[in-house]
Formats: sequence, structure tokens, C-alpha cells
Amino acid sequence: MMRKEKKQVEEITAMEADFAQWYTDVVRKADLVDYASVRGSMIIRPYGYAIWEHIQKELDRQIKETGHENVYLPLFIPESLLQKEKDHIEGFAPEVAWVTHGGEEKLAERLCVRPTSEVLFCEHYANIIHSYRDLPKLYNQWGNVVRWEKTTRPFLRSLEFLWQEGHTCHATDEEAGEETRRMLEVYADVCEDYLAVPVLRGRKTDKEKFAGAKFTLTIESLMHDGKALQTGTSHHLGSGFAEAFGIQYTDKQGKLQHVHQTSWGITTRLIGALIMVHGDNRGLVLPPKIAPVQVMVIPIAQHKEGVLDKAYELKEQLNKTVRAGIDASDKSPGWKFSEHEMKGVPIRIEIGPKDIEKHQAVAVRRDTGEKIFLSLDELETRIPLLLEEIQKGLLQKAKAHREEKTNIALSMDEFKAVLESNPGFIKAMWCGDRECEDQIKEETGATSRCMPFEQEVISKTCVCCGQEAEELVYWAKAY
Amino acid sequence: MMRKEKKQVEEITAMEADFAQWYTDVVRKADLVDYASVRGSMIIRPYGYAIWEHIQKELDRQIKETGHENVYLPLFIPESLLQKEKDHIEGFAPEVAWVTHGGEEKLAERLCVRPTSEVLFCEHYANIIHSYRDLPKLYNQWGNVVRWEKTTRPFLRSLEFLWQEGHTCHATDEEAGEETRRMLEVYADVCEDYLAVPVLRGRKTDKEKFAGAKFTLTIESLMHDGKALQTGTSHHLGSGFAEAFGIQYTDKQGKLQHVHQTSWGITTRLIGALIMVHGDNRGLVLPPKIAPVQVMVIPIAQHKEGVLDKAYELKEQLNKTVRAGIDASDKSPGWKFSEHEMKGVPIRIEIGPKDIEKHQAVAVRRDTGEKIFLSLDELETRIPLLLEEIQKGLLQKAKAHREEKTNIALSMDEFKAVLESNPGFIKAMWCGDRECEDQIKEETGATSRCMPFEQEVISKTCVCCGQEAEELVYWAKAY
Ligand SMILES: [Zn+2]
Ligand SMILES: [Zn+2]
Repeated sequence: MMRKEKKQVEEITAMEADFAQWYTDVVRKADLVDYASVRGSMIIRPYGYAIWEHIQKELDRQIKETGHENVYLPLFIPESLLQKEKDHIEGFAPEVAWVTHGGEEKLAERLCVRPTSEVLFCEHYANIIHSYRDLPKLYNQWGNVVRWEKTTRPFLRSLEFLWQEGHTCHATDEEAGEETRRMLEVYADVCEDYLAVPVLRGRKTDKEKFAGAKFTLTIESLMHDGKALQTGTSHHLGSGFAEAFGIQYTDKQGKLQHVHQTSWGITTRLIGALIMVHGDNRGLVLPPKIAPVQVMVIPIAQHKEGVLDKAYELKEQLNKTVRAGIDASDKSPGWKFSEHEMKGVPIRIEIGPKDIEKHQAVAVRRDTGEKIFLSLDELETRIPLLLEEIQKGLLQKAKAHREEKTNIALSMDEFKAVLESNPGFIKAMWCGDRECEDQIKEETGATSRCMPFEQEVISKTCVCCGQEAEELVYWAKAY
Repeated sequence: MMRKEKKQVEEITAMEADFAQWYTDVVRKADLVDYASVRGSMIIRPYGYAIWEHIQKELDRQIKETGHENVYLPLFIPESLLQKEKDHIEGFAPEVAWVTHGGEEKLAERLCVRPTSEVLFCEHYANIIHSYRDLPKLYNQWGNVVRWEKTTRPFLRSLEFLWQEGHTCHATDEEAGEETRRMLEVYADVCEDYLAVPVLRGRKTDKEKFAGAKFTLTIESLMHDGKALQTGTSHHLGSGFAEAFGIQYTDKQGKLQHVHQTSWGITTRLIGALIMVHGDNRGLVLPPKIAPVQVMVIPIAQHKEGVLDKAYELKEQLNKTVRAGIDASDKSPGWKFSEHEMKGVPIRIEIGPKDIEKHQAVAVRRDTGEKIFLSLDELETRIPLLLEEIQKGLLQKAKAHREEKTNIALSMDEFKAVLESNPGFIKAMWCGDRECEDQIKEETGATSRCMPFEQEVISKTCVCCGQEAEELVYWAKAY
């Protein structure tokens, strides 16, 4: 091993030693982010942004395919507008940034930098919806939002983040409910089929639901350290916002009715999930479907005649069907290996003078480290298959990991013991009382992640108070 | 003409009567924007946003093709950071929005909402550039910015707008100059080849250049009312920012050097240019290359058997090669004609029972109103060609319009007379003195738009002071 290469690998903290530090190391060494001078803000660097663009592209396709249209609403919300829905302002007021001056002039009314855009959409909907013919309205917005968080971590919790927020209006409560579930399924599909991140689908408790919503659906994922991450939420807003903002339509009978609304969002947080679900002690591991570079060609002994030419030829050939790159820099092969492992490139292809003689190349899988000798003739057909295999393998591995770290608790003692010995999801019955939910959090640090759609009865009594149980809940410590 | 149809057409003010009101009418009636409760902010509605997405898609492709990478930097700039480059802060301070509170807490230092991101990029570049191997750095960002404008108009001048901003670092002044010109050419190409908006390429005077730049290149377009619109700018920043922010690299000889920078941007303003260059008294006229719907199929007597089926069949057939839509709503054909004319759809296709009998359809061009009878067999091949013809025709028409409205002035009297009789670009010689530039603005209301790359000598003396002339300048009243 060369000196430089060693040094680079050594610089990552092992995840077993300090998971938080490992995360920070990967985020920096894989060139995903840099810090900016405003506390808690991040710079998303080209490699990180390219991952986001791939996520965006697929999600945007599915959002449009399900009949939604993109729009753009303002960044600023007047304080009086934010206050129109009581629960909503209570939920968000503590964490918004306030603009008080424009140029040299003090504003008559403070403006908040949007933490989410429900009230802006509601004001707009009240303007443009009049008749049942105007429904449903299915809008989506890509943009940035700001939340004044006290403690921040790149991608997971930052002052400003990028996201999409869907906002829809429907004639009936039932239709809004269908939309809420439909978009959760879109999110689940993007997570599982593209990011290879398995998700648990369920409903949030009233304590954890969105401020102002009737109910919130959520997808929850388990990170490598056994902590949960909320990867997407879809809210049934009922008609509370419509009543506060006067969003009404004339139905077929000529009667005025309030609309029923939903909102749903997914954020740059997903990149955090990718890192913490698939990453290892060599760095990032990217699922092929969203990897900016799927295959990196690395010439060996590239100064020897014919090697570079052959390597470029392979890259061009691969580019017909996959996203291939080449690292022809003057760094050593060993340095390049660890660099592209750090960046999580799914496959590297080594090609040197001996390989050329044998009319072969060596493919190395990032996920398993497996070396595969491939005839140059079969490269073009085998690599796409190998990428599919890697994609599937990552999802299976993540699912198996989640299974291993999902336990049942029938008592609080069991709850605490298992959370200590094998941190992860804990399935436990709950009576439905907020008091028990609070007490579980206080005693264990775990919060209710969701009431899964697939309910089971693992006991008849609440894990906390022993009263009659109403729901199976997944609990976990969470990001 | 039906009553409803009439009403809709009547609602647009004629552009000859009141151009500003015509613009506002088109923007609203074509469903491009709606107003929001924050003064000067706009809601970009689905149709307007779809146009922006088409512009983005092409521009993003060309930005990447020229070697640039997308990144995302924070929304907020600490006041002290903004102040690091003296000219820059002087230029922008009067028009920024200030965040003074986060949640309940008053901030120790005010944060400005980015009006542009030079200082953020500079801070980042100082962190990541060390050696000549790190150069060039070619970054681009898509996002929103805020400028506290006093008077605002949708797309043309708003408190918040969407744009892309490129920021690059180079080893030499010459390379930065090449980049500045290269990106101006990309902008010119998008404007002329995609938006069919002809542009004049040139350099801004010192008075009109970007705050902190060495020089600014610009593309300028002429609107239907004879006023100019700056459609894109590309700035050579020299090494002033690099010196203020300490962006240095070690060159091949081991010597520390400052980098040379550029920045360049294009905004949602382009949608304003589209409207004011191509629009007419029936509404928007969209160039096919960026029209969200290129061909709208409108069934005639759609209740008659077979008509709707045939119309859907045509739409599917057209969708193989163009972006086709169908309006099968229960509105009258007349209503639909004016609706899609208002929205600027390049071609509408009428298909009714008689057409089906004759195995034909009627194509109507939005730009010329020409009716073309097409056999159903040739539809699939003829429509793409017709779209190309329309695209070319729009550019030619706009060029001819600009020619008609471009005049020469050899004296101030001539200048004023021609600006009055045929408002548009005025070509006049200039001595290079700021005083003359100021005086021309004061006397005529026209500003220097640019010193064109293609210089001519139309006189030897300055149109204002009579001293020796240095440059030919294009002048105009501008948005
Ligand atoms: Zn209980
Ligand atoms: Zn002069």
C-alpha cells in the first residue's frame, strides 16, 4: 500500500468506534458537502448535488406521471398569513427566520422565510378554486426552506434544506385520503427501488403528526447504527386549512363546500439515509440507479503503450448503456481505488497491459469487494446485469439488517434491555394515550416512529401502562 | 362568435393602446402568474413554470456540456462576508432583505438573503482551491435570489426571482476572459435558437457593469414596444474578489497566485422577453422549442360518433414526435380556439366529422393564423416540419422588427427625434466619458445598452459632447 492511500483510508473513523464521526468523515471525504459561514448551513458540492439531481429526476417523473404540475411560490410569508391556522403557527413559529428590513427600510410587517408553504398554497388556492370543475388541484414545488434548528448535521438537520413539497386540493375527504396514500407509495417506491433503502409504511401518532394535519403518513428507515430516520411524510390536512383560508368550491348541486387538502415532502435528508444505510468503513456505497458514475475505469500502468487508449475505448463502449467515467489522472492506481471506493462508485474496472494481452478486464464490486474477470467481448452486456445485481443486493442487505435489528418488547424492562443490547426498531403495543408515549420517550429515549399499516397483535396490553392496547407501534431512537 | 369567446378576447387590452396593460393582461390570462400577498412577489403557475422548465432543461444541458458542475450554496450571507468586497456591497446593500431573528432569538449578526452568491462562492473557493491542479473550477447553481426592488412587474422585476448563476475560477486572466465570452455565447444560443429572441452581443459601459466586475458582457433584446431588455450577462471579475477573499493557488513554479474569476446569470426574466417579443393582441405566441404543448388537438362536434376517438388517436400519433395535447373539455370549439391562442400554442389541429370523411385535419398556425389542410397520412411527418418553420419564422420576424426599430443618431436632436418617432435601439458614437452617458440618460431617458462586439464608425465625434468618439454604443429605453 502506498503512503498516500494508507493515509486517506486511515482518516475515516471506523463506524463501530464512533458512528457520528464516521458520518461526518464520509460526508467530507466523499466531497458531498462543505461548511459555510452561516451556522448550520451547508454547501452541497458537485458530487452531492449530482446524487440529488438523480433522486430529483426520478421523483419528478413519478410526480408528473401521477398527474401533478410543478409551480413556484414565494420564499417569504407575511406574519399575519402564517398565523391564520392556529396549530400550524404553533408548530412552526419557534423555528422560523424573520426578515425585518428590506434595503434601508424597516418593514411594517415581519416576513418569515418559508419553513414549508402550506399557507402560501392556501392563499393561492382560495384565489383560483371556485367550482368542482377546478378540482382536484395537484401542485408540487421544488425549492429551499429554512428551519432555525439548534443542532445541525449535514443533510440530516440543517438550517436550510432542499426538498419538494406537494400541495393538493380535493372535493372529498376520501379523495384526499387516497392522494395521501398514493404519494406515500411514490416515496416508498423511490426509496426502495432507486435508493435501495427499505422503508416501513405507517401512520404517525397525534403527537408526531404535522402541525395542522388530520393525520400524517410516514415512511421510516433504519440506519446502520440502529437509529431510525423519517425518510418521507404525506399529510392528510382535512379541511382545517380550507376553513381558515376560505378555500371553497361550488359543488354540482350549487352548494358551497370546503376543499380537502394534502401535503407531502421529501428532502435532501435522503442523501443522509443513503450514507447511513449503505456506507461502510471505506466510505460511501451508492446504489447504481442513483450513482452519478456507475462504473469507473482505472487504467493500470497507464504510461505503457496502448493502455490509456484501451481504457478510453472501454469507457466509450460502456457509456452506451451505463454512466461510465475514467480516472486517467497521474495519481497511483492504489490512490484511485480508495478515492472511488470512498465515493461509493458501484463498480471499478481495472485494465492493464496483462489484461489487454488476455483480452480481459477486472471488475471490482464496491458492495462486496468481489473481483470478476471479464472478457472484453462480454463487458458491454455483463456490466448492466452486474449493476442490477448490486442494486438488488443492497436492498436485500439493508432489509436483512433491519430484520436483525427489529425486536419485540412486551414490558418496559424488555424494551430497555433490547434497546441497549441490539438498538433498532422495537415493536410494542400501545394504549393510544399520549402519557404513555411521553413516558416511553422519557425512560428510553425512543420515540414512536409509526403505527404500521400492517398491524399485528403481539400482546393485548400497552407496554407502558398495562391497559388495553389499541395499536402496534414501531419505536426507535431517531435522527 | 360565441358570447364567452368574445368576452375573453375583449378582456385583453390592445398592445397599441397600452403596452404595459397588455403585458399584465397576457401574463394573467395565459395563466402564467398570480400575485401573492408579499408585495412584488409572484406565484409562477403551472403553465409559466413549464416554460421555465423547458428553458432550464436546454440551458442546463449546455452548461454541463461546457464542463460545468451544479452545486448548491446557502441562502443566507452574514453581513461581514458581504462587506468583504467594497464595490460589491455598495452595489447590492440598498436592495437586500435582512434576517435579524431566528426563532425567538435575535441574531448577533444580521444575515442577508442572497441577492447573488459571489461572496459565498468566494469563501468556498478559498477553502477548496490550493494548487493549479484544482483549476479551473467551473460551478453553476440553480436557485432563487431576492432583491428589494421598489417597483416590480411579473418576470421583469420582482422581489424574488429564479435563475442560474455560474461562478468560475481560472489560472489566468485570459482564461477567465474566454469563459466570460463562452458563456455569453451559450446564452445567445439559447435565446436565439430556442426562444427565437434575437440578441445583440456587447460589453457594458463601466457605469452599467456588475458591482465588483472588471467588465460585463451582455446580450440585449428589443421588445415589441421598442424598449430594450437585458436578457443575460456574463462578468469577468478579474482578481478583485480573489484578493479580497484570499483565493490563491500554487502555480507550476511553486509560486502563490490569485485566481481570476467569472460569473454569469440568466433569470425567469426570459419569460418576460418571450411575451414581449412574440406576443400579439390574441395573447402569447410561444416558439415551438420551448412550448409546453406544441400542438393542441381540438375535436369539432365532439359529441358526434367517432370524433373523440379519432382526436385521441391523432394526439397519440403526434406524441411520438412532438408534444401534443388534446382539449376534450365540454367548452365550445370557439372558446377553445381563443384559450389556446391566448396560451400561445404553436399549432392547433381541428378535426371534425367532415374532416374525418375527407381523411384530413386542419392545422392552424398561431403565429400567422394560416390554415393548412393536411391528409391524416401526412400529419405525422408534416407537423414537425411545420414546427421548425414556425420556429424559424418567429426569429426572422423578431429580427426584422429589431432592424426596423434600430436607428442612427449623429446629434442629440436627431437622437431625441428618432426616439420619439420610432422608439428602439439608437446607434450613436460616444467619447467614453461618464458625464456624456449621464447626460444622454437625463435628456432622453435612454441608457447605454452595450458597446457591440461588431463596432462601426458612423461618425468621428461623440453624439453628446462633440469630442472625439471612442465607441459605437447602442442606446435605448430599457426595462
Ligand atoms: Zn399505555
Ligand atoms: Zn461625449
